[in-house]
Amino acid sequence: MNYYEKTIGVQPIYHGNILDVERLTVELPNGKIATRDVIRNPGASVVIPITDDGQIILVEQFRKPNDKVFIELPAGKLDFPGEDPERCAARELEEETGYTAQKLEKILTLYPAPAFADEILHIYLATGLSCGECHPDEDEFITAKAYPLEEALRMIDEGVICDAKSVAGILMAERIINKRK
Amino acid sequence: MNYYEKTIGVQPIYHGNILDVERLTVELPNGKIATRDVIRNPGASVVIPITDDGQIILVEQFRKPNDKVFIELPAGKLDFPGEDPERCAARELEEETGYTAQKLEKILTLYPAPAFADEILHIYLATGLSCGECHPDEDEFITAKAYPLEEALRMIDEGVICDAKSVAGILMAERIINKRK
Repeated sequence: MNYYEKTIGVQPIYHGNILDVERLTVELPNGKIATRDVIRNPGASVVIPITDDGQIILVEQFRKPNDKVFIELPAGKLDFPGEDPERCAARELEEETGYTAQKLEKILTLYPAPAFADEILHIYLATGLSCGECHPDEDEFITAKAYPLEEALRMIDEGVICDAKSVAGILMAERIINKRK
Repeated sequence: MNYYEKTIGVQPIYHGNILDVERLTVELPNGKIATRDVIRNPGASVVIPITDDGQIILVEQFRKPNDKVFIELPAGKLDFPGEDPERCAARELEEETGYTAQKLEKILTLYPAPAFADEILHIYLATGLSCGECHPDEDEFITAKAYPLEEALRMIDEGVICDAKSVAGILMAERIINKRK
């Protein structure tokens, strides 16, 4: 089946700090014309930090869109489109948690909201962790804490962890760790 | 720790078909002023349809932001903010796949992009399926197909399924099904 929607017009709507908005005019497979609102951003790296004794490091952070504190995997935007996502992952891990990793292993590429945003998340399993001191960006209010992996899974079951990238990443890490046992 | 960011100004940027954009001015916990770009939409319901013989029904759909065909769980927007998400789940399941479910069970609430969007996804496990005929919205090009659950998990491992809600939902369904065995 031909699904492709050909772009026949691009209207820039907004240029923000962390995202841009465009309104596209497209031609559908049946020849009809439609519009698509698209959010563009450079993407981000996400880290699943697992300590040698099987704990996972998560961060607590306020997110304005829902006026809600989330418990999430450490993550941060690429500094520019095309930045090496592994370098970004190492930086964000250290900034947000104070840990550095001997091994960063790409385990997933995720599209968090493919219906309206082009964001791509590069998700890394981080092992061989050493603890340093965290130094978040100025004006970034964030607290890192270690949880046994089983507790993080319970927090998913109970809806305490509900950020999609964190739910997908933690469940995937458990799948990989179980396979390797 | 006090994380709260108080809203001190709201600038409407864009009113689109499926989303609105606002630029908020906020006061940080340290008293400094910052801006937050926020995408608002009414949220959506997502269905994990599992047949009596253990197959999962997925849909193939083109998504304009990445110019890419995704294999996803059936899903669709709430018709209006406050629509009963279970009603929306039943409707989208039937529209996109032709199946109706005897049982819809809420298993997850997910926030796909909490850093910049307020979207909430209501995720239901659908069982007791009966096959009818699918009738997608006019101008919606979508194909439904059944996969053994083990194959869907392999497709996650291989990056073929990479939409965050689908990865989280399928891994969670497997977790629940294994627990109940």
